[in-house]
Amino acid sequence: MGHTERHVLTDDARRKLTQVSTATITTQLLRLGFRRTFMAGIVPLSPDQRMVGYAFTLRYVPAREDVAVDAHYDNDRNVQRLAVEAVGPEDVLVIDARSDVSAASFGHIIATRIRERGAAGLVTDGALRDTAGIARLKLPTYYRAAHATTSAVAHHPVDMNVPIGCAGVLVMPGDVLVGDADGVAVIPNAHAEAIAHASLAQEELEAFLTEKVAAGAGIRGVYPPSDDVLREYEAQRRDRPA
Amino acid sequence: MGHTERHVLTDDARRKLTQVSTATITTQLLRLGFRRTFMAGIVPLSPDQRMVGYAFTLRYVPAREDVAVDAHYDNDRNVQRLAVEAVGPEDVLVIDARSDVSAASFGHIIATRIRERGAAGLVTDGALRDTAGIARLKLPTYYRAAHATTSAVAHHPVDMNVPIGCAGVLVMPGDVLVGDADGVAVIPNAHAEAIAHASLAQEELEAFLTEKVAAGAGIRGVYPPSDDVLREYEAQRRDRPA
Amino acid sequence: MGHTERHVLTDDARRKLTQVSTATITTQLLRLGFRRTFMAGIVPLSPDQRMVGYAFTLRYVPAREDVAVDAHYDNDRNVQRLAVEAVGPEDVLVIDARSDVSAASFGHIIATRIRERGAAGLVTDGALRDTAGIARLKLPTYYRAAHATTSAVAHHPVDMNVPIGCAGVLVMPGDVLVGDADGVAVIPNAHAEAIAHASLAQEELEAFLTEKVAAGAGIRGVYPPSDDVLREYEAQRRDRPA
Amino acid sequence: MGHTERHVLTDDARRKLTQVSTATITTQLLRLGFRRTFMAGIVPLSPDQRMVGYAFTLRYVPAREDVAVDAHYDNDRNVQRLAVEAVGPEDVLVIDARSDVSAASFGHIIATRIRERGAAGLVTDGALRDTAGIARLKLPTYYRAAHATTSAVAHHPVDMNVPIGCAGVLVMPGDVLVGDADGVAVIPNAHAEAIAHASLAQEELEAFLTEKVAAGAGIRGVYPPSDDVLREYEAQRRDRPA
Amino acid sequence: MGHTERHVLTDDARRKLTQVSTATITTQLLRLGFRRTFMAGIVPLSPDQRMVGYAFTLRYVPAREDVAVDAHYDNDRNVQRLAVEAVGPEDVLVIDARSDVSAASFGHIIATRIRERGAAGLVTDGALRDTAGIARLKLPTYYRAAHATTSAVAHHPVDMNVPIGCAGVLVMPGDVLVGDADGVAVIPNAHAEAIAHASLAQEELEAFLTEKVAAGAGIRGVYPPSDDVLREYEAQRRDRPA
Amino acid sequence: MGHTERHVLTDDARRKLTQVSTATITTQLLRLGFRRTFMAGIVPLSPDQRMVGYAFTLRYVPAREDVAVDAHYDNDRNVQRLAVEAVGPEDVLVIDARSDVSAASFGHIIATRIRERGAAGLVTDGALRDTAGIARLKLPTYYRAAHATTSAVAHHPVDMNVPIGCAGVLVMPGDVLVGDADGVAVIPNAHAEAIAHASLAQEELEAFLTEKVAAGAGIRGVYPPSDDVLREYEAQRRDRPA
Repeated sequence: MGHTERHVLTDDARRKLTQVSTATITTQLLRLGFRRTFMAGIVPLSPDQRMVGYAFTLRYVPAREDVAVDAHYDNDRNVQRLAVEAVGPEDVLVIDARSDVSAASFGHIIATRIRERGAAGLVTDGALRDTAGIARLKLPTYYRAAHATTSAVAHHPVDMNVPIGCAGVLVMPGDVLVGDADGVAVIPNAHAEAIAHASLAQEELEAFLTEKVAAGAGIRGVYPPSDDVLREYEAQRRDRPA
Repeated sequence: MGHTERHVLTDDARRKLTQVSTATITTQLLRLGFRRTFMAGIVPLSPDQRMVGYAFTLRYVPAREDVAVDAHYDNDRNVQRLAVEAVGPEDVLVIDARSDVSAASFGHIIATRIRERGAAGLVTDGALRDTAGIARLKLPTYYRAAHATTSAVAHHPVDMNVPIGCAGVLVMPGDVLVGDADGVAVIPNAHAEAIAHASLAQEELEAFLTEKVAAGAGIRGVYPPSDDVLREYEAQRRDRPA
Repeated sequence: MGHTERHVLTDDARRKLTQVSTATITTQLLRLGFRRTFMAGIVPLSPDQRMVGYAFTLRYVPAREDVAVDAHYDNDRNVQRLAVEAVGPEDVLVIDARSDVSAASFGHIIATRIRERGAAGLVTDGALRDTAGIARLKLPTYYRAAHATTSAVAHHPVDMNVPIGCAGVLVMPGDVLVGDADGVAVIPNAHAEAIAHASLAQEELEAFLTEKVAAGAGIRGVYPPSDDVLREYEAQRRDRPA
Repeated sequence: MGHTERHVLTDDARRKLTQVSTATITTQLLRLGFRRTFMAGIVPLSPDQRMVGYAFTLRYVPAREDVAVDAHYDNDRNVQRLAVEAVGPEDVLVIDARSDVSAASFGHIIATRIRERGAAGLVTDGALRDTAGIARLKLPTYYRAAHATTSAVAHHPVDMNVPIGCAGVLVMPGDVLVGDADGVAVIPNAHAEAIAHASLAQEELEAFLTEKVAAGAGIRGVYPPSDDVLREYEAQRRDRPA
Repeated sequence: MGHTERHVLTDDARRKLTQVSTATITTQLLRLGFRRTFMAGIVPLSPDQRMVGYAFTLRYVPAREDVAVDAHYDNDRNVQRLAVEAVGPEDVLVIDARSDVSAASFGHIIATRIRERGAAGLVTDGALRDTAGIARLKLPTYYRAAHATTSAVAHHPVDMNVPIGCAGVLVMPGDVLVGDADGVAVIPNAHAEAIAHASLAQEELEAFLTEKVAAGAGIRGVYPPSDDVLREYEAQRRDRPA
Repeated sequence: MGHTERHVLTDDARRKLTQVSTATITTQLLRLGFRRTFMAGIVPLSPDQRMVGYAFTLRYVPAREDVAVDAHYDNDRNVQRLAVEAVGPEDVLVIDARSDVSAASFGHIIATRIRERGAAGLVTDGALRDTAGIARLKLPTYYRAAHATTSAVAHHPVDMNVPIGCAGVLVMPGDVLVGDADGVAVIPNAHAEAIAHASLAQEELEAFLTEKVAAGAGIRGVYPPSDDVLREYEAQRRDRPA
């Protein structure tokens, strides 16, 4: 898999990714051949929020009595705690909890900490506890279910910043995660800049087409657009004041 | 199965169906012997909306590379697109997506189109994408989950207006679909008129009984009502100003 | 299992349980060795409500044509109806519906009745019907899914006030059930008083720690707290006006 | 539900039930209106064995640290152990393990004991451990999965000879359980005698029809049989030497 | 989708398909770009049998009281019965039962009939009843689970020889179905001849490579084979007596 | 988690582990406080085989188009292939396939290779392909399901000899895996020697108790054994010829 150079989004691309939907992003990724880029069954804690950030991964394995107990609250050795203090601005902490929702995979106080460190979001394919408290943090958060039980009952954190599976999708450290009301899309880091531009372009065209449909046009010749409609769109764009 | 005559609801019956709950409707259907009439696991996109309309069915099969690619965006041959332009006023477009939520089964622009054509609603036992955009259409919509990926990755539309299974329930073209916050009930077309009247009658009686219970009455003799309580109800109805 | 004495919560403990989260309660229970105390997959009908009450259990078995029919609406013999008229103030009616959501396990009129009897809540690991109507009752309610079909299609009530399993957790009659936005925690009756006090104490400490983290402190030395931080907390508590 | 008189099968009926398939039995039960009479997802440990016996039910609830520990190996108080010593000849011990397969619900030594007591079989909707050892007992056994972990980790026995749900089906104490390679059918006690006779009659007719089909006949007029074919069957039966 | 010409396998291709594994076939299909060609969760009734034949599809929808009753045993109108009498030699009857295993989807007598008509196999993504009886027919059979209940409780046959989904895979009428101990692969009709030849070629090469590995070679240079190893394989083939 | 010293089993302990059941092993582990030590839902390919060996772990993540393609068949860089050539005698190759059975996680030729390298077994919580071919290798093999599709469609190998989750259980490199007809138990390396001895001791006692039960003794005083029965057992052991 190798450790390839991480690309940093331009401000323009980053801004565009906060505007476009995960539906558009996955369509653009499909055009590049990427088929599995959306986390299945993961819902937003607050559907009105948007999330854009770089994946900072955290891997859990099942808890076992000989590994979980002594290290769990040790901020020097517990990998979850090390990750919390390593997450940086614009990072999204994304947890591979093996889709196990029999206990939480993150709690309220450490969620507060990553928000203070500037994290752009929190994603887990497991459960969260104290979801009301986490919602008050205004940190974009995506999860599978609520479960009040503390993570150590089911999970043991073991690695950070390694490739993980999350909700059926590969997440490499540095991949760009975008979240909206549908859930979370994963953009391979090397493609994120281009996907941002292509996605906004698609959405601008679709806004034009949707307006036609909302005004009564049939989809024939409009969606997908005919050459005539595309010319009309281009003309309209040219005439728009900058 | 045969193509039997489709009954059109009277205005009175249609109005009643917009008032009564799916709980009442399934109870009335049970009295006629119908046991499986409610779609399992299907939730409203906007719980405060109500839906009443005739089933216009659309059947999907799993996508395969030799059938999905070339026809997908062809408005002359793609069955999904043909369905979108065939749906009529008061129809509910209802999709058999095999309860597969690994990709969306309908998108925002074509949902806009069926709303413009007067459709009464959209139901799928699969996923939807751009749920925020669809919610803004104010088209009553019922679905299993959100998934941002476009339908062609998982689904190939193959038939319209054939009997389908949707969320575990048979839907025949022309059946009357009613949706509320609980989900979607399916009324066989031939029974819809009678069910509408019986359902409102049941709800009027139950409102009377609930009022008694809310005022402190025990359920004995009230729910189910004794003959005395039924007489009291009938008397009250007679005395009500028209 | 035996029928042991039921402890009644002091007013102080009861008040505390309405303030603390199920996340805190399950942590305190874990310290006593209790690992499985939270109902999996059960969600609140109204996330902003809180529930505290004593378990009044109701056990369902699968319906069968020879047992379900004649007794179902008989308030003298139907166990569900007997339970509805036996639930007392501060009780939570909690139903073992075998996590079967193919039909409802409780309805709106009998929910109205238990609210009038002073019940503190309603919990089922099955489905509910007419959820919009139940939500209007303002009775704290927890359930797995909505299904409009009446309970008799799938369920036959057979016992009340016996130990049950509910959503994977043991519930003994008299256990204290606490519900919040995450779901429902079950506190063994004998431990409820102590858990109430310990839970509030934990939350007061954690509020102090969270304030530090929200002000920019790292978690090292703060969560879990060092001896210094604990002393600071104790000093602050002493200085607080009563 | 009441405690109704238990009917004992005649030797003739019992013999017939060891010959007929669960497919035939469920069809005969359907003719009486019983729709849910077959345990879903339960497989035989030894597909070649047949089982016929009366249900002796055992109900488990989820284990909890305060109830499971002290009583578990106490043969005077542990309900599982009391059941093992109460099961009688021709009884089938049938366990409601809530379909939870995260630990076993019965073990090898106590299975040996019920075989010695003359039990006709063992059925659980949970898991079994030491399945190789149990298979050597030649006791007809039906279960959902293998799991090596002892039952106390997940299960606490709480009742015997009460109505239970097992694999989605109601089982009343005394119901007649029949097992074959497909799994286990439950015959309500009051109907078992009649079902036995009707089932063998159906199978004798179907053997006649199958012979015709195996000889090349089409199903039209044969399955279901026309009046002519029925007369031919009756004639053949009359002519058969007793 | 269209009704394209159906290709008939040469005897050589058909013979090859009876020799190669579904593992090899899906790999060859993947090389053509086909990713989803294997039925998930479908097991052979008799693992030692092999199946090769053309798909004759049968589509079920959920049963409903107004459609299931009168037509079910009517050999003139029931679509299942019409299909049974239309299946031809070398056809595999393949049923879309919506993966619903709450009742059987086919029975023993009609399975006998399709064997007599020369059918090459029976495949369902639902359940079968009387599996012991069907096993005795020696008709290659693939299914998801056993359930003794007759199909009419859950299923209503509605179409034959239409495209269906079966266990997550598209099946077009005329597609070539191959079954072995792993389960069932679906080869699009137009590609079956070529896949047959390519599959046997792959298996012959792999047998050569496996022999090397079984003799102690490492996989480097062997699997995948280096140019040298490929030359060695080709030389050996040339030298083999015809 | 740390890299602790790996203990090597004595020949005596190793021999004992080949004799005792996973049921006994998990009971002995429970006495040490280990509750989750058995892989859920994993079945033997050949139930009559026994497996004992040290865990050599292999971790898969979901496949993605940018990582899977070029490296997949590259024996120098593909982690699966590197693992195959690193597995040593007495090792069990154990794969974390995220319980994803939508494609195989290992194939026949590389299974042949690890057998030749002396591997003691193969375990995956995913699927296997060409199961008939693997069965012929006589390599103890445990898996969740068969799926003919090659692993690269769903899986990308990313790490070896790291802690993994497999079928819900933690597996550390060097842990001792024991397999029988029930499935696979995981013994933490540091405890394996002691567990081996304790397990055989338990089984010898239980054989003595089972003999009593098979001879007609009730379980009271026998299982668990009274002090008298324990003394009788000890006396019998002393008198046994060495």
